[in-house]
Parts: sequence; structure tokens; C-alpha cells
Amino acid sequence: MIIRNIKDIIGTDKEVHAKDGQWSSRRMLLRNDNMGFSFHETIVYARSKTHIHYKNHLEAVYCVSGNGLIEDLKSGKVYEIYDGIMYALDKHDEHILHGGTEDMRLICVFNPPLVGTENHDKHGVYPIINE
Amino acid sequence: MIIRNIKDIIGTDKEVHAKDGQWSSRRMLLRNDNMGFSFHETIVYARSKTHIHYKNHLEAVYCVSGNGLIEDLKSGKVYEIYDGIMYALDKHDEHILHGGTEDMRLICVFNPPLVGTENHDKHGVYPIINE
Repeated sequence: MIIRNIKDIIGTDKEVHAKDGQWSSRRMLLRNDNMGFSFHETIVYARSKTHIHYKNHLEAVYCVSGNGLIEDLKSGKVYEIYDGIMYALDKHDEHILHGGTEDMRLICVFNPPLVGTENHDKHGVYPIINE
Repeated sequence: MIIRNIKDIIGTDKEVHAKDGQWSSRRMLLRNDNMGFSFHETIVYARSKTHIHYKNHLEAVYCVSGNGLIEDLKSGKVYEIYDGIMYALDKHDEHILHGGTEDMRLICVFNPPLVGTENHDKHGVYPIINE
């Protein structure tokens, strides 16, 4: 059994910050935990804007506080995000994540699991890391 | 892209209740969503007690509100659960989940994904369902 406290992750190398400051991702379970997925808490800051395209991963995201918007670049549709809304990028959907009026607290699951050091490249992609 | 609202799941057949009333599991992503994991929000009611042994699944659980305890039956250790605590059953750990003084809101991920109709058997196990 693994027991982890988010307070022990914040401020360590398991908390990864967006290069442009839009979000912070606290990585609670990673590939070497052997769960078959990785598990993160991500804070998306109010009034931020992030272009994301996870070409190599599927991701599910569940909002438990705060607010924002997700813009699906293929369909052009925009969906509100708030406490109780989940979105899943089941087709590697390219999107823009818009911070709202309050920071969003998002619970995120990636398949395949992240190694932990990934950051978005210029296309909003997390690379596949084979160590 | 899949977008789901917890309000559209509560009260449907995707909300499964414990036979003895200790918890309610709202199943937001299931096997047929093809994410490689299932994703649930589970409310564990205050002062409840549940014996669990997921022999067929790995599970990660993250608490975002409320409080309780997890008792690891192998080691005998008891860990507090509250906002910001994650536990992962990486060894199919048999345990007792104790509700605290307030209902716990838990975010749960299962690998392999649940089909959606599973309930605990008398040993606290979710069966494998091949449809």
C-alpha cells in the first residue's frame, strides 16, 4: 500500500510548473509505482491559457473546485469546467484550457503513466520517455 | 472528447450503492470508454465501515474532502485520510475503510477498468466481468 500526502509533493521535483506559469502539476503516482496509470493534481491558474495536445497519452480530468473552460480545437466547441465536471481526451483531442475567475483544482489520470519529468513542448505535447 | 457532469450520473445506474449502505460510487468513466482505466467519485459515509479486498484490480484513491481512516490488514497499520491524502492499493491490499466524522469524497481509479455493474461480494472483492 502506498500512502502519499500532497503536502509532501508540493515544492519537490514531483511538482512540475508550466514554463509560462499557467499551471502546476503535482505528480502523486508515476510509472515506477506500477499502477498502469499516473495520477496528478494540477492547479490551473485563473485567467491562464494553455494549448495542449497529448499525442502520446490519454487523459481524464475531473474538476473538484474553481472554474474555467475547455475549447475543443477540432469541433470548436467550448465547455464550462467547474466542480463536478469531468473531461476525457479519448481521441488525443487538441484543446485550449482557459483558466476562469478562480484557480481550478483538477485531478488528472494519464495512460500510459508519466515518468514524472515531462513538461509540455512547444506544441503542447508530453513526450514519451523511455528510460 | 468526453464531457460528463456528476449531476447526470447521480441517481442513474452508473451510481452504485453499497449493499449495506456504507458508500455510493458514481462511475464517470468505464471500460467501454476505452481509456484503459475507470474513474469514479465515491462518497464514503461518516461512521461507516467497509471491508475491501480488490483481488482483481489495482486502485488509487485521492481524498478531496471529509475524513476517515484506512486500516491495512496485513501490516495492522492505520492511516488517516483527509483532503490531500492519496492511497494506492498496488499489492491488492486487503483493508478496512472507516468513515470518519464527515462523509469522505474520494476520487478513485481502477486498473483494469470496471464495467460498471460490479458490487462488492461478501469478501469485499469486485469480480472480473467478461462481456
